[in-house]
Parts: sequence; structure tokens; C-alpha cells
Amino acid sequence: MGQIGKQSIEFENPPYLLSSSSVVGQKESEGPLGKLFDEIVEDPMAGQGNWEEGESEFMKRAISLAIKKAGLKTEQIRYLFAGDLLGQLIATSFGVKDFEIPLFGIYGACSSAGEGLSLASMTVAAGYAKYAVVASSSHFGSAEKQFRFPLEYGNQRPLSSTWTVTGSGAFVVSKEKSDVQISGITTGKIMDYGIKDSMNMGAAMAPAAAQVIYQHLRDFGRRPEDYDHIITGDLGTIGQEILIRLLKENDYDISKQHMDCGIEIFSPEAQDTNAGGSGCACSAVTLSAMVLPAIQRGEWKRVLFVPTGALLSTVSFNEGQSVPGIAHGVLLERSDK
Amino acid sequence: MGQIGKQSIEFENPPYLLSSSSVVGQKESEGPLGKLFDEIVEDPMAGQGNWEEGESEFMKRAISLAIKKAGLKTEQIRYLFAGDLLGQLIATSFGVKDFEIPLFGIYGACSSAGEGLSLASMTVAAGYAKYAVVASSSHFGSAEKQFRFPLEYGNQRPLSSTWTVTGSGAFVVSKEKSDVQISGITTGKIMDYGIKDSMNMGAAMAPAAAQVIYQHLRDFGRRPEDYDHIITGDLGTIGQEILIRLLKENDYDISKQHMDCGIEIFSPEAQDTNAGGSGCACSAVTLSAMVLPAIQRGEWKRVLFVPTGALLSTVSFNEGQSVPGIAHGVLLERSDK
Repeated sequence: MGQIGKQSIEFENPPYLLSSSSVVGQKESEGPLGKLFDEIVEDPMAGQGNWEEGESEFMKRAISLAIKKAGLKTEQIRYLFAGDLLGQLIATSFGVKDFEIPLFGIYGACSSAGEGLSLASMTVAAGYAKYAVVASSSHFGSAEKQFRFPLEYGNQRPLSSTWTVTGSGAFVVSKEKSDVQISGITTGKIMDYGIKDSMNMGAAMAPAAAQVIYQHLRDFGRRPEDYDHIITGDLGTIGQEILIRLLKENDYDISKQHMDCGIEIFSPEAQDTNAGGSGCACSAVTLSAMVLPAIQRGEWKRVLFVPTGALLSTVSFNEGQSVPGIAHGVLLERSDK
Repeated sequence: MGQIGKQSIEFENPPYLLSSSSVVGQKESEGPLGKLFDEIVEDPMAGQGNWEEGESEFMKRAISLAIKKAGLKTEQIRYLFAGDLLGQLIATSFGVKDFEIPLFGIYGACSSAGEGLSLASMTVAAGYAKYAVVASSSHFGSAEKQFRFPLEYGNQRPLSSTWTVTGSGAFVVSKEKSDVQISGITTGKIMDYGIKDSMNMGAAMAPAAAQVIYQHLRDFGRRPEDYDHIITGDLGTIGQEILIRLLKENDYDISKQHMDCGIEIFSPEAQDTNAGGSGCACSAVTLSAMVLPAIQRGEWKRVLFVPTGALLSTVSFNEGQSVPGIAHGVLLERSDK
């Protein structure tokens, strides 16, 4: 059923994105996409006692909203595919436990939305579920605490650094028709170019994004011109340059089609976010708030959505390891309905 | 295709376990199952520079061996489903990157082998892959460092504590017939009974195991007597008592059928392992070394394999959160071939 090329699936009976949601923090609401998000939560702890519980609350609200927008009840959701950046996925565990939906916990760093959408569409297309939900979250406070310095320390951030998006996006995948179909997926493998700078994740992730986009185009026998946009997750401005160069060296020029959620979500000059936004929420909320509506309105007919993840941990980093990258491609098309 | 009851799938065309492997450390080799494991690595760092890289090496060897035992080449594996206990899955990332197989990173704590086998069998049964590999790992040193105390501190371990298994198990799932078929799965949801003792994970996981076993029996319309064994992952002796009691209260007596990998793998008196073994590797290597051979020999016809996970992190623990549990059921049967 639908295996094509080396790393892709083209669904014979594609599943659809029935609904989506985006719940973000104050800083995100002040960025260029601010007016497009479903819900703004100004308190970074979202009324909870700490950042991690706050992040869980963002995910909880995003999932509830996506299910509500699809006109469904929680009991109708057969599977939940969810993940975040924190050790042992605690934002997810505590965010989703009250829903009591059978859960597949996923970890692909900031590519998690792509991994989740891939698995959910495989599941729904195969008939294992009528409705599946995908969710991912990230939080500036919990991520800085997990990966870098205490916020109170006020460290300087190099220009190559990105700003972790606070928020969560959720999606309902179903066989019921909607305006947006998931026509296929291209599953990424880990690429390690030996980057050791945790403040330059764009460079760490660009090779993985390049590999997945290259293989996607080969597997589907298409050229960049066949896409309205090829949209990566959070490469930022520096990762974008590397991605475009790597693909040009391999005969694909995506400079006209390429967009990056991390570049779209913040205004670097006004918001002091350096190379752009990042985090599992970055691609998820941008997909929900900006990309899907453009497909729904018929402005874009075909988009390759490629969330990107930097496989970084403080333990491996302190032991001198590199930061490998991974990316997962999801082919979204305007459906005939 | 095959959805039954509330949380289960019964595969119309079941996938098979084509091969499996178990690579463990010295302590595991000295336990009751010692002679059954494929490979013993006496150096806890497996020739690497630290425990985390050592754990990656265990996983690398387990995957290589499983692929080799199936008579396959790495390039033939379409997907890899893998996970471990460490923050951001670093044992997995660095263990699998050289294989260059499209990767779905999974996190279900010590239930990861069950989660991976579930997703791989869904994938293979749906025709998305001819061959998929599942792997999970854990390591006593890296786990104690991640979750508890520095080993040098030599803390006392309460009797309810378990000993993290050092090792990795891997599995090749395929539609090619073998002696063991994966007839179905029952996917777990998070259960939180408010346990806050990170040294009593058996109690934290037992409710999740009970829920999944209960729902499995309901979904498939069977009684415990219909199974040769119902095998949990790492409840240990204390979790076992709770599990059996919880199910008895719900009209199912599994006391005759129940086994626990954590109880099987060590001799508590001789090896000072208190309530038993634990970790992602515990259920994976026991499945490979003890359970699958018994099914292959035809001694057992039907087994429900239920790895159990405690969703514990030092961050959530220090913030006063509970330790929720999750478990994933995999129905294994002797095939007619």
C-alpha cells in the first residue's frame, strides 16, 4: 500500500486534516503571525505552578480545542500521537493524561509534529482509527532550563541562536473529507555533520532537512517548481542558507519555494530573536495558523511540510558529542472534496 | 481493518517476528536467564567513553544482530522504531544514526518495546514496509545518573526499588512467515494513581498494566485461561501483587498466568536487586531470550506481552508531581506457518 521510492509513502486513500489548533504565549502573539493564532495565553505558566506544568496546560488546551473544532468528543479519538522536548516527555505525559486516549509517545525533537502527523496518517489511512490526534509543544522557559542556562543568569545569545516558541499545536486526522489532504509522507533519518554548537541548531538540522527534501523529490519524481512551498520547521536564517546551498549542490533549487516556520513566526529586529523561532511548537502552530488556512483558501495547492529536529541533550553535549539532526516530510494538498 | 473493542487491533493479516536479539551486561549474564542471551558485554561502557555511549553501543549491536539473524541487509529495513529512557533519547540517536534507516523515535519509558512492536506491526500489516526493526535499550549507570543518585554516592536502595537492566533488545517485524505472529495489539493510556515514590515504580505502573490487560481481555472477548502467559515488563514483586489484586477486583484472576520480566531476569537474593529488574531493556531482552523461544518451540501458544513504563523525570519529580504509568499490550501467538 503506497510505498514509493526509498523513504516515502503515497497514500492511495489519503487521510485529511479535519481540524487544527494553535495556542501560544504572549511573545508569539506579538510576532507577525500574532493575529492568526487561536488562543493567546499571556501567563507563561498558564496558571500552573511552573513552566513545565504550564507547557502541559498549553498542550491540553490545544488538544481540547482541536477536538472541539472538529465537532468531536474526546471519546471518539482512537489514538493520540504526542511529544515535546523535555526529558521523558513530561510536558506531554502531564498534558494528555486526563484525556485517557491511548497514547503513542513520540520523540523527534522539533520534528515531532512531522513524526506525529506521519504516524497518524499511516494509522488512519490503514483503517486502524477513524480519528487520531497529533500534538506537540514547547516552552521558552522549560527549554532554556532543560538545555541551556537558568533564565536568571541572563546569558548572551549568539546571533545563530533561536528562540524557543511557547505554545502547542494539535491536529485531528481522519478519513472524513476536508479541504486539506495528507497525500504522502517522507520519513527522515538521522544526519550528523558533526556540528557541536548547541547555539547553532539551524546548521545542525539543515543536512537532515536537505536529505529528506531531496529524497522526497526523487521518490515522488517532482521538481521544486511542483510545490507552492517547501516549509521547514525551525532552521532559522542560518540553517536556511545551508539548506538551500546543500540542495543546489544536488541539482535542486528551492530558493523560490522555501519558507521556514522559525523565520515566519518572529520579527528578529523587533523581538530580539536572532536567527528565528524554534521548538516543537514552532512548526506546529505555524502549520495550524498560517499554512493550513492558505491551503484551505485554495491559495496554495501543494505544500511539503518538513519539521526539523536537533537531537540535543545536555548530557551528550557535555560529553562532547555532536548535535545530529532529523526531519520528517508531510505532503499536504488542497483536496477536491 | 481490524479495530476491535475500545483499545485494540486484531490484524487480519498478522505480521511476524522474523528474528530478535538480546545484548546484555555482566550482571544480567549472571542471572537466571544468563545462558539464554545472544551476547554478553562485560565492560559496562562497551568500549566507549561513558555509560551513555556504552548504551548506544548495546543498541547498535542488538540491531545489527537482529538484522543479521533475519538474513537481511540494513538497506532492506524500511523503518526503525526505537527508544530509550534518557532525556531526548540520546542512547537511541547515537546508537542508530550510522544505520541510516528512516527513524520514528518513540518514548514510552520502559514500555517502549511494546510501543515499538505495536507501531511496527501496524506499519507492516498495512503494507507500508516489508521489514521494520524495533529496538529499545537501558543501562544501569546511565539510568541511575539520569534519575537518581551518582553511583559514587552509594545510596541505600529500598526493597521496593528495581535494578535497571543494562542491555538492548531488537526485533525484525515482517510479513514473511515465522513461528511467531503478532496477532494484535492493545494500546495503553496513561494511568495516574498519584504515586510519588520514584523508588516504587512497580506501584506506579501496576494500574496502567491492569487497565490494558483488562481492556485487552474485554476487546478480544477472552479469559485469562485462554493465555499461556500474561507477561508484564518490570512491575517487580510489589507491582505484581498490586496488578493481580486490581484485576481480581475486576473479575479477572491472572495469578496463574502472570509472569513479569523484571522478576525473571534477576535472582533478588543472590544479586541484591530488591524488587526485580527494570528499564526498557528488561522486557525487550527477556522477550527475545526467553519468551519467543518458548513460543517457537510450541510450548506456549498464546502470550500477552505487556511492557510497562513509569513516566518519571527528575524535573517533574522535584516539582512534586506524581509518577504516572503506561503499558502497551502485544498479542503473540504460535503461527501455523
